[in-house]
This record gives sequence, C-alpha cells and structure tokens, in this order.
Amino acid sequence: MKKIAILPGDGIGPEIIAQAVRVLEVLKRDGLAIEWSFAPLGGAAVDEFGSPYPSLTQNLAREADAILLGAVGGPQYDTLDRPLRPERGLLAIRKDLNLFANLRPAILYPELANASTLKPEVVSGLDILIIRELTGDIYFGQPRGIAVNELGEREAYNTMRYSEGEIRRIAHVAFAAAMKRGKKLCSVDKANVLETTEFWKEVMIDVAREYPEVELTHMYVDNAAMQLVRRPKQFDVMVTGNIFGDILSDEASMLTGSIGMLPSASLDEKGKGLYEPSHGSAPDIAGKNLANPLATILSAAMMLRYSLGEETAAVRVEDAVKKVLAQGLRTADIFEAGCEKVSCSGMGDAVVAAL
Amino acid sequence: MKKIAILPGDGIGPEIIAQAVRVLEVLKRDGLAIEWSFAPLGGAAVDEFGSPYPSLTQNLAREADAILLGAVGGPQYDTLDRPLRPERGLLAIRKDLNLFANLRPAILYPELANASTLKPEVVSGLDILIIRELTGDIYFGQPRGIAVNELGEREAYNTMRYSEGEIRRIAHVAFAAAMKRGKKLCSVDKANVLETTEFWKEVMIDVAREYPEVELTHMYVDNAAMQLVRRPKQFDVMVTGNIFGDILSDEASMLTGSIGMLPSASLDEKGKGLYEPSHGSAPDIAGKNLANPLATILSAAMMLRYSLGEETAAVRVEDAVKKVLAQGLRTADIFEAGCEKVSCSGMGDAVVAAL
Ligand SMILES: CC(C)[C@H](C(=O)O)[C@@H](O)C(=O)O
Ligand SMILES: CC(C)[C@H](C(=O)O)[C@@H](O)C(=O)O
Repeated sequence: MKKIAILPGDGIGPEIIAQAVRVLEVLKRDGLAIEWSFAPLGGAAVDEFGSPYPSLTQNLAREADAILLGAVGGPQYDTLDRPLRPERGLLAIRKDLNLFANLRPAILYPELANASTLKPEVVSGLDILIIRELTGDIYFGQPRGIAVNELGEREAYNTMRYSEGEIRRIAHVAFAAAMKRGKKLCSVDKANVLETTEFWKEVMIDVAREYPEVELTHMYVDNAAMQLVRRPKQFDVMVTGNIFGDILSDEASMLTGSIGMLPSASLDEKGKGLYEPSHGSAPDIAGKNLANPLATILSAAMMLRYSLGEETAAVRVEDAVKKVLAQGLRTADIFEAGCEKVSCSGMGDAVVAAL
Repeated sequence: MKKIAILPGDGIGPEIIAQAVRVLEVLKRDGLAIEWSFAPLGGAAVDEFGSPYPSLTQNLAREADAILLGAVGGPQYDTLDRPLRPERGLLAIRKDLNLFANLRPAILYPELANASTLKPEVVSGLDILIIRELTGDIYFGQPRGIAVNELGEREAYNTMRYSEGEIRRIAHVAFAAAMKRGKKLCSVDKANVLETTEFWKEVMIDVAREYPEVELTHMYVDNAAMQLVRRPKQFDVMVTGNIFGDILSDEASMLTGSIGMLPSASLDEKGKGLYEPSHGSAPDIAGKNLANPLATILSAAMMLRYSLGEETAAVRVEDAVKKVLAQGLRTADIFEAGCEKVSCSGMGDAVVAAL
C-alpha cells in the first residue's frame, strides 16, 4: 500500500485538490493500492498550528511515498513575520525532504493553442521540459541578511552557492530526462559573469561524457529569456539553477497561455516527490468554484508515474484529461467561444466520468 | 565643444558605428558643437593592447562627455582567460565610470508590428522603459570564486549585495523617469526569498514618498517574466537590480521582435553616459554589411538627449529613422514581404538622406 500525503494549502488549493482526490478515489476503487492522509501547509498551517510547515505535516510528508500539494499563499499572510509566511513552508518542505530536482513541463495542448499570447506557428506543438535545481543556489546560500556595513550604511546580501555534488546530481536527472525525450539538453548559465555558473557549466560538460547520445548546449540566462520568446520550439530539455529556473520556468509556462494546465514534480534522489500545479493559489478566485483543477489532476498523474511506478494509471488519468478537452469543456481561465464553460467541480465531474 | 568617445568594439560593431558616425557628421556640419575620437573596447582592445579596457580607452572615456559603443564579443575570444574576455571590458567601463543606471526602452514600432512573435493585439503600442541597476548586485559582489570547501568538495559562490545608497540612487532615476512618462513604476524583486531584494523593496517604498504622483507597484521576478509574456502593455516603467534587469530587459526587447531597433543608455550621477544598441555583436553576420544600424543610430539620439542636452538634434535623428521605416526600407533582420531590403550602409545612406 503506497502512502500519499495530501497538502491542500491555501487559496484555491483545497478546491483543486478536492477534484484530484476524486480521481484518486476512482483509481483506488479500481484496485490501485494507495492510501492518503491530509495535512496543512503554508498559511493554513500557520492558522492551525502557528507554523507554515508544522511537525504534523513534516511527519506525514516524511513517511509518505509521495506528496500532492495544492498551492500556498494569500494576501492575509503578507504581514506575517518572514519565518511564518506561507512560502517558507514550501521552501522548508523542499529542503527537509531533499527535493532537489524540479521538473516543469511547458506543453501546449493543441485544443488550447489560442490561449497563448504568441502566434500559433511559434508555439504549436511546444513541448519543453525545464529542470530546475531546487534546494541550493541563492535560495539557501549563507551568509545572508540585512546589516549595517563597515561604512555605517545599511546593506543587504545573499549568497549564490553550488557544490560540485549538487550540480552533478541535477545534471544526471537532466541528462536522463533528455535520453527519454529528444536527446537535446540546454544548460542555462551566466558563465560570462558569475563564477558559480561558470563552475555549473564545467560540471555539466563533465557529466555529459557519460551521456554521449545527448547533445549538450549552453546558453546565457539573458539569451534564454529572449530565445523562449523568439523561437521556443528550439528547446527540448533545459536545466538550470534555482533562481534562473524560477524565472525561466514561469516564463516558459506562460508561453502556453494555459498555466492552469501545467503540473510539476519536485523529486529527491530516490524518486520520492512532491507534486503540485505550476500555478499559484489565486486568492482572487478562491472559494468560488472557478479554478481549473486540471494542473492538479495532471500533477497526480505525474505522481503516479514518477513516485508510485503506476504508469498505466498515469496514462489513464492523462487520457481522461485529453478527453474532456476534446469534449470542449473549459474552466474560465482557458475558455473560448464555442466551448462549454464549467466550474472547478464540473471539470472534476467530467474527468471522473471520462475515467 | 562636447567630446564623444566612440568605441566600435567587435563583430558588427564597426559597421553599425560607421553609420552612426555618418549621422553625427551631418549634425556637426549643420553646426552642432561636437567632436569625437575612437578607441577599442573588448576583443578589439585585447588584439591591439592586450586588455579589454586598456588605459588609452579608459582615458578617452573618462575625459569624454559621452560614449558611443557598438558591441563587444566574439567566438575567437571565448578561449581567452577570463580577465581578458571582451565582456570584462564592458563590465570594467561601467564600473570605472560609475554608470549605474541602465535605461532600456522596449518599443514596438508600428511599421514593425509583424516582427513580433506575439499576437499584434498583445504588443501593438508597446512602450516599456526598463531601468536596470548596473554597477552593483551579484555582478560585482564580493566574496566570489571557485574553491574547495571544508568538506573537501569543490564549490563556487557569488554574492548578491546592495547598499541603501545604491538602491536609493537608482530609485530616484526610476521615479524621475516615471514622472516624465505614464507615472507608473513597477519595482521587480524576489522579496519572498532574498533579503537583498526585500531591502530593495523597502528602500523603493521609502523613496516613493518623494514622488506622490507616481503609482509604485511591486512584482516578484518570476511573475514579471510571466506578465511580460501575458500582458506586456500593463507596464510603463520597470526598475530592478542588475541580474534580474539583465534577464527581463532582454525578454522585453524580444517581445518587439526587432531588437535591432532598440537603443540603450547607461548613465552616471551627472548624466554622463555610455550609449549602445541593446543587441549583441552578431559575429555570424559581421563584415557582411547586413547588420541593422538603427539601434546604434537611435543610441546616438539618446546620447544627444541625455548627455549632450541636444533635444532638437535627438528628435531630428529619431524623425529620420521613422521616415526611413515609413519609406519601407528594411535590413534583413526586420525584412518582410512588400518592403525594400537594404544593407547596413544602405540603411545609413537612407537615414543621412532623411536628415
Ligand atoms: C513561492 C516561491 C518561494 C516559489 C519559489 O520561488 O521557488 C515559487 O515561485 C515557485 O516557483 O515554486
Ligand atoms: C555581456 C554581459 C556581461 C552583459 C551583462 O550581463 O550585463 C550583457 O548581457 C548586457 O546586458 O549588457
């Protein structure tokens, strides 16, 4: 029996998670050996336990084979002290469980081609996988802080840092992913300015020798931000550090125009992972049954594939999502004339029916 | 008599600079009190003097009232030792002359609307000014390097750092620019993760009190990278640090599809500045008389406006550029059916004629 920790989180989190749970219920009824429990993360956890990643959640997450997360954050938490902010819960669980490999696909569904702000010929068939290192870099580097310097002036600082081992293990994830896809890997750095990414590039080149079939290229981060707009289909797999990956993966998701469709996975060295939609907690539409649950449902499919070894079930879920899209059902975020607008739970109904 | 230091640089640099010089010659002939001298920067300077920012260039640049640069860099310099690389020359001159304020307009010329990969309705009328801090942040922060850590493992690190004074002065540039435009300023940070940018945000809010007419908003860098793709016309002026500005200004330029048209300025506290096209040295087309000289010519116009106080001459140059576009003349990078394709010098001829 595989154990799943489900963390609904804040904002639209509980609504979208509810629909993903209905999908898991169908799979369980049909014989899949899974069980799950719920725990809070982010603002919801602060409200209940006074901490964005309380020990209850930590214990459950540590024991689980996989974690399914909704989203965290909301304006009501913006005034909390920094250690209590919802995003601290997210950073803490990533670090605690050593979830160093963040996989973010940016895929354009043919039915949703019009949702993109880019011209159809530029994005049709888009299928990029961005692999972002998630537990190192300037996110976690020490020293960091705000202080008065030797001239008596206030200043603030953070440290970008990568060890060889950290780069090597994310490189292996990226090359292995490229081997299963188009065998093209673009490593993004700023090696012309930053020693950290010069070192990153050097280690990438070294690891590449173990994957002679993969074509490794290098691109500066500023150019990558341009090329994603100019000719996004030139990319197959991209790999980069935590902060550049944060920026580029969001840019890449938005190229599809339907970020409400995009799942993500954050994996440790053994394949245990946390799965969550690429979008945020959308406080403005929370509680209104308007959110698109498909990214969360597709995150559950990724979880079945990568952490639970249930490829057949994963494909079954993905096929159900394709079917409801083909039926013309759309939540508000991806609605266009000629389609049928459905609510969050209405979309859940349709996916359950399609299963 | 105002003095201009002209640094052609590498790749297409000399060709595009040659056309801008022809424009300056016309203005001088018509009575503008300017004179200029040439000096190398980047790879060309390494070839000639063994340094990417040699003292000859330094002296000329220090004495000048303004500097006009082509572009630096090329594959033949990629194997040089780091201190000799062309981009080191660029970083050195910025730091040496204290050119802390980088102004990068992203403007869509109506005649070139088709060049964008974004849908016309998303980008038509686009007019964003990105203000990037250029002499601080992780570009120059100490400590930095590649070393063996206490565990005996190799690692690399860089330091993101901003002092209050550095943030305050770029804030004033940004608010002043917003006052002259749409009075909307968006400050981009990653205040939810990085103390440096939390501090940045705090100082921006403080400076805002001196500019009550400007509407200041804040956006996380990952969201900014998305919003530039999703709804770029929401922005008027954006201000951010050196590394985020590097990434976002390139992304924003590419939204127009015609980066060959975009000038930039890098200013010190007194208005002295270095002016250069937003694009690079394009080694692949260097020496072929194919490059688009308009970004360089428009950079010269920015120079006339910001550093030389010659608004009338600046407008005269900009009007000439608009005229040649209206005439349907296009270099290869912005060519489309129905227009007349011209060479780099052919475009220069046309601008000179239009003056
Ligand atoms: C909420 C924030 C801390 C987080 C990050 O920057 O990693 C988010 O932007 C993400 O990409 O998951
Ligand atoms: C060449 C490089 C050092 C430079 C930078 O990163 O500042 C360039 O990308 C730019 O934006 O002018």
